[in-house]
Amino acid sequence: MTIKELSGIAKRESYVLAALSGEKRKFALENIAQEIKRNAEEIFAANDEDLKRAEEAGLPMPVIKRLAFKEEKLAETLNEISALINLPDPVGEVTLHRELAEGLILKRVTCPIGVIGAIFESRPDALVQIACLCIKSGNCVILKGGSEAASTNKALFKAIHTAALAAGLPENCLILAESREDVKSLLSCAGNVDLLLPRGSNEFVRYIMENTTIPVIGHSEGLCSIYIDEEYDPEIALRVVLDAKTQYVAVCNALDTLLIHKNAAPAIFPKIAEMFKEAKVELRAQEALLKYADCVKAREEDFDTEFLDYILAVKQVESLEEAIEHINSHSSHHTDGIITKNPENAEKFMNEVDSAGVYLNCSTRFADGNRYGFGAEVGISTGKIHARGPVGLSGLVTYKYKLYGNGDTVGQFAVGEKKYTHKDLD
Amino acid sequence: MTIKELSGIAKRESYVLAALSGEKRKFALENIAQEIKRNAEEIFAANDEDLKRAEEAGLPMPVIKRLAFKEEKLAETLNEISALINLPDPVGEVTLHRELAEGLILKRVTCPIGVIGAIFESRPDALVQIACLCIKSGNCVILKGGSEAASTNKALFKAIHTAALAAGLPENCLILAESREDVKSLLSCAGNVDLLLPRGSNEFVRYIMENTTIPVIGHSEGLCSIYIDEEYDPEIALRVVLDAKTQYVAVCNALDTLLIHKNAAPAIFPKIAEMFKEAKVELRAQEALLKYADCVKAREEDFDTEFLDYILAVKQVESLEEAIEHINSHSSHHTDGIITKNPENAEKFMNEVDSAGVYLNCSTRFADGNRYGFGAEVGISTGKIHARGPVGLSGLVTYKYKLYGNGDTVGQFAVGEKKYTHKDLD
Repeated sequence: MTIKELSGIAKRESYVLAALSGEKRKFALENIAQEIKRNAEEIFAANDEDLKRAEEAGLPMPVIKRLAFKEEKLAETLNEISALINLPDPVGEVTLHRELAEGLILKRVTCPIGVIGAIFESRPDALVQIACLCIKSGNCVILKGGSEAASTNKALFKAIHTAALAAGLPENCLILAESREDVKSLLSCAGNVDLLLPRGSNEFVRYIMENTTIPVIGHSEGLCSIYIDEEYDPEIALRVVLDAKTQYVAVCNALDTLLIHKNAAPAIFPKIAEMFKEAKVELRAQEALLKYADCVKAREEDFDTEFLDYILAVKQVESLEEAIEHINSHSSHHTDGIITKNPENAEKFMNEVDSAGVYLNCSTRFADGNRYGFGAEVGISTGKIHARGPVGLSGLVTYKYKLYGNGDTVGQFAVGEKKYTHKDLD
Repeated sequence: MTIKELSGIAKRESYVLAALSGEKRKFALENIAQEIKRNAEEIFAANDEDLKRAEEAGLPMPVIKRLAFKEEKLAETLNEISALINLPDPVGEVTLHRELAEGLILKRVTCPIGVIGAIFESRPDALVQIACLCIKSGNCVILKGGSEAASTNKALFKAIHTAALAAGLPENCLILAESREDVKSLLSCAGNVDLLLPRGSNEFVRYIMENTTIPVIGHSEGLCSIYIDEEYDPEIALRVVLDAKTQYVAVCNALDTLLIHKNAAPAIFPKIAEMFKEAKVELRAQEALLKYADCVKAREEDFDTEFLDYILAVKQVESLEEAIEHINSHSSHHTDGIITKNPENAEKFMNEVDSAGVYLNCSTRFADGNRYGFGAEVGISTGKIHARGPVGLSGLVTYKYKLYGNGDTVGQFAVGEKKYTHKDLD
């Protein structure tokens, strides 16, 4: 069957899945954890195939590292599923309860979105995370992972799908898409697919947006900045900036741009330069800073670059306002922080910087669904619509309005026979 | 200036608007109400021009009626603004407050979306509603109304803009787009415009979606259904169905399809046919029903048609399940209701029908922001992402995560020096 036909079946079965109880979805997740454990050897063997292919193809070390799915990743994955099982059911939450008029009661209740199309990179654990988050939130999902992880994904999918079916979930609540052509087909499934979650480069996410009418929540680049304000704690500044840049360089919440107030620069920049020299990070500094330390002169494009590497662009600014303006026009609206001892400046920065995460005196690396306590994430949204920042369960539900009456008509209100009370209940 | 240039300025000024206090936005709305009142004569004169042009062009009566902006509409509009002023500020609401670890505090806080592009039909009061909702929620807005209302829109916009500026709002927080070409330009303003709100036909909304990468919340057709279940109160059934079909036929929440359980049909359908004969509504009934009353035989496409007229398609179904399935595959997921005395059937219907509004024993005509107590609406979303059903203030905000630390690094957690507590506060 084609992805289009499959998505039509998934759409119909999404109503069945949405009607299942939270208990049943919980049971399915327990079953999935067990089945993955039971099939560990098979999954490891499949992963060996992927790793062998990747080495033969000469893929870079960081890609190969992310591709690996062994004992440690398995344990992590099982931990994540068990944390997810223990989170409250995101479906059926009443978020508004209002008497519109006597005997006419409105409830806004969370419900699954329907069918989700997820396109992600070559980390096989991403497949497990996304599938489990979708089941927990009552959504069908079409999964397309990176081709480098094809064998591992297939083995993981088999275990997950078998366990879900055995738990009584509908057959097409989980669909594995395997070819690049499937991605193209997926884009034309408006009406069947309710939401696309692409993860990848800006170009890739933009390509998806340009070629579909399905709503898209994109996980793309994170050009993250930290601004060191005029009054700051140097110990905190050094510690946080080092962690943000070097704790894991290849990820979206790592630091790319450092802004320093002109009155802070003379004292702190030499120390920063020394610290990063030791950490083998290349600093690309704006001209005004070169007199304080020996480093490469930054080009303009460095301030629009997500490095994903041991490189950091540094700029001196005249004021808090200039820092905010720089970030609003150069950052990718992912996560940006301020180091300051001045609480007013902190609030101004956090209110006026237009990013999903605005941080005070801590590392940008905290931008993550697990660290926020969301029970993993399907991605980190740099868009503003529906879900922003780490997208966990609350980003995977929508709501419906339930109105309970007893023969109520709008005509009664039009002629003044009845009156709206608009009284919130509970 | 072109719309693209203007949208760039609006983007920059959106940060200024977002930083203004709720008090200041409230004051602007008070000023706007006064300025519209003060300019009433000028606005009425402009409306006369539009009405004259519409009559000369031979536009249909319902269009001309909606175009009129006189004393009564003015009073309604001023009432709506005053209701909006009294609603709580949607900006700055803390929706999550969590200790991630000792001394590391996460807050999720609502904030404006940024710049909104609204494209709407020829009701001049829509311009006032949308502009005021956007100001209340701290968003800049580019407004493009129907060309039939061009003169009235211009006069209203002048009053609103003057009042907003006098209240200290930034100059380009409100922009009036006047030509059809402006709509095309608006679609290419991704990066400056954060959200598009088109209102119109399905085709129009689809055209917008196909030609932009900006997220779209569409207000399009409402193909609404009511299902009369096996056990039902005939008095309620007749009253609700009549109101849903005839209280105002030209709107999206009016009834288009009536489904009747086969065991209910023999008793209720003849009464329905008689009632609608009197109300001059043409019934198009499925063959199985023709033996109970004299009416036109429905064609298949009648069950996929939003009539916006005194026409109703009627179908007999075998079961509650068939009714749910029919609605999920034929309705536009706007608002659908059930008439039943059986509470289990009611809950099954309301849980499994995948529509923004699911109603028990009341008229579909209640689907409306004012009636829900939202302080007007920018539209009724038939999509599921971000906002569903009547879109009021809560659909016009997004959120950001604020993280407050004191030198916290991810590295401390990686080496086990610190532990996540994930404790919800307040």
